[in-house]
Amino acid sequence: MNDRFLRACRRESVDRTPLWIMRQAGRYLPEYRELRARVDFLTLCRTPELAVEASLMPIRRFDLDAAIVFSDILLPLESLGCELSFDPSPRIARPLRSSEEIAALRPRPVAEVVPYVGDAVALLRRELSGRVPVIGFSGAPFTLAAYLTEGHGHDGFPAIRALRAADPAALGTLLDTLSVMVTEHLELQIAAGAQAVQIFDSWAGILSPADFAAFALPAVRRAIRGLRRYHVPVIYFAPAAGHVLELAATTGADVLGVCWRTPLDAARRLTGGRVALQGNLDPAALLAPPARVRERALAVLDEAGDEPGHIMNLGHGILPGTPVASVEALVAAVAERERRTA
Amino acid sequence: MNDRFLRACRRESVDRTPLWIMRQAGRYLPEYRELRARVDFLTLCRTPELAVEASLMPIRRFDLDAAIVFSDILLPLESLGCELSFDPSPRIARPLRSSEEIAALRPRPVAEVVPYVGDAVALLRRELSGRVPVIGFSGAPFTLAAYLTEGHGHDGFPAIRALRAADPAALGTLLDTLSVMVTEHLELQIAAGAQAVQIFDSWAGILSPADFAAFALPAVRRAIRGLRRYHVPVIYFAPAAGHVLELAATTGADVLGVCWRTPLDAARRLTGGRVALQGNLDPAALLAPPARVRERALAVLDEAGDEPGHIMNLGHGILPGTPVASVEALVAAVAERERRTA
Repeated sequence: MNDRFLRACRRESVDRTPLWIMRQAGRYLPEYRELRARVDFLTLCRTPELAVEASLMPIRRFDLDAAIVFSDILLPLESLGCELSFDPSPRIARPLRSSEEIAALRPRPVAEVVPYVGDAVALLRRELSGRVPVIGFSGAPFTLAAYLTEGHGHDGFPAIRALRAADPAALGTLLDTLSVMVTEHLELQIAAGAQAVQIFDSWAGILSPADFAAFALPAVRRAIRGLRRYHVPVIYFAPAAGHVLELAATTGADVLGVCWRTPLDAARRLTGGRVALQGNLDPAALLAPPARVRERALAVLDEAGDEPGHIMNLGHGILPGTPVASVEALVAAVAERERRTA
Repeated sequence: MNDRFLRACRRESVDRTPLWIMRQAGRYLPEYRELRARVDFLTLCRTPELAVEASLMPIRRFDLDAAIVFSDILLPLESLGCELSFDPSPRIARPLRSSEEIAALRPRPVAEVVPYVGDAVALLRRELSGRVPVIGFSGAPFTLAAYLTEGHGHDGFPAIRALRAADPAALGTLLDTLSVMVTEHLELQIAAGAQAVQIFDSWAGILSPADFAAFALPAVRRAIRGLRRYHVPVIYFAPAAGHVLELAATTGADVLGVCWRTPLDAARRLTGGRVALQGNLDPAALLAPPARVRERALAVLDEAGDEPGHIMNLGHGILPGTPVASVEALVAAVAERERRTA
């Protein structure tokens, strides 16, 4: 098996830097757009054969070192009775606002609510038959809470900041509930064969350091603590969170995802080698011509340095308008660096 | 004249911390919504009497220490031949993408394109007759470039990041052009009577420190250098830019606006007292009950400390759903602190 990715997660030496791409199974691929012309987003997520088909698309095209299951971070929220839709951005029918609503939450077990996520992971693992490892994933408690309270994506997610100001204890209760959900969601995927998991804290960067330390951090720590016995590498990714980077390195995750705003050498200094780093080529650089993509990718590899414990990736999800040739240039740049240092 | 605000900009002692609120003339006020029911946004901006009416609304209701002219940062882009619309979010008809388009830009003088901004400032200054100072404002070159290339608001503004990767020289040219425009736009307002100006770099926080230093910073520095001879305080505000805070303190501005993500005591340490600070109560805290607003506002005043050079404000624009009672609680908290320390 190609185990570069798993070795890099554990900060072990590798023959070359492993590469995967956030949202690698997505809209920039013509074959994905073709699939989506036939089937809506939720059906795709809920049908293991289709989710696996999407997960495999980038693996068939490019020399990538890991496959991530096709799914969505919001799906397990249905265990709280939430009604989800995607039009195409996510929407939750009745956002949570009051401490009464939060206290009344009685989540159903995640495995009963999204069994198809486990099925997709198991099928993906089987289909890959060891070619590359399978990554499972989940939203982080704070980010799920941000959607639950706002009801949809919104710059700065004011509803959860308002809840934090009005009733911090209620926010704590909500995060406790979601920590358990995140652990269950990842346990389901690990039990089904996920060899690593990534936790997306997409909106934790809206918090001040004090609030990150008081709310987002303990919630994700608790979720990760619940996974320790599985000995599966955990990646924590909070973009636009350079102001809390040192705190973000203390979640208990093995790997810290770094967005394009923070140079990897600075991230390495600030985290003192306690975690592996994943990232962080600016996804927008892939909208430039291939020669520039190569140059920018090599610059990221340079910033990452020679110490073990770097996983090459973008600093955020790949953009829908990205040309396939840019991904080819990125893959080639990573392979080129192997030859240069071998 | 109430000169608390201007004294605090210059880090001089004050009888109490001055207060104004970003977007204080806006949608949270019933009288503003009433005005907007009669007149569309662009007409409001382009009609000095109406713009002044909106600017005065918060001054009539609350004990605030400065008035800001009602306008929009994108209006001077019409000097580049851009067609603007607001539906309600801003949209530019034909976004700039290529270096050819950028090289071909021949901006008309700002004073010819938006004379109504100068007229509104002059009328506002007259109407206030010294009650509180008048603040003029502009977008920063980088933020204007982000809109010009993207065409509309977009999380992370990928188009300008793509331009930076594909053709950094073209981005430099665009920023040069916009620096001149920003200086002209602020000169127009200063000539009309603005006693301070704020430069909004709303999207500079998407940049890494290296790119901030290479693009956003020199462009805004150049714009501010062009204003030095007027001896009018300049405020620079780049939200979600905690990762470049020390750089942001070197624009030449007298005051650095701080968003809610960065505690004021940390900002004070990082900027070493070289600039006054403005902010940074989380606007979402104003969605909480008045007693909590008071508590959070007093906490911000505590973080700001006793040294001169703090202007109380929110850490971002006031949210449309904010109750008027919350603003009253904020004003009262600032006044209360005066009594406590007097």
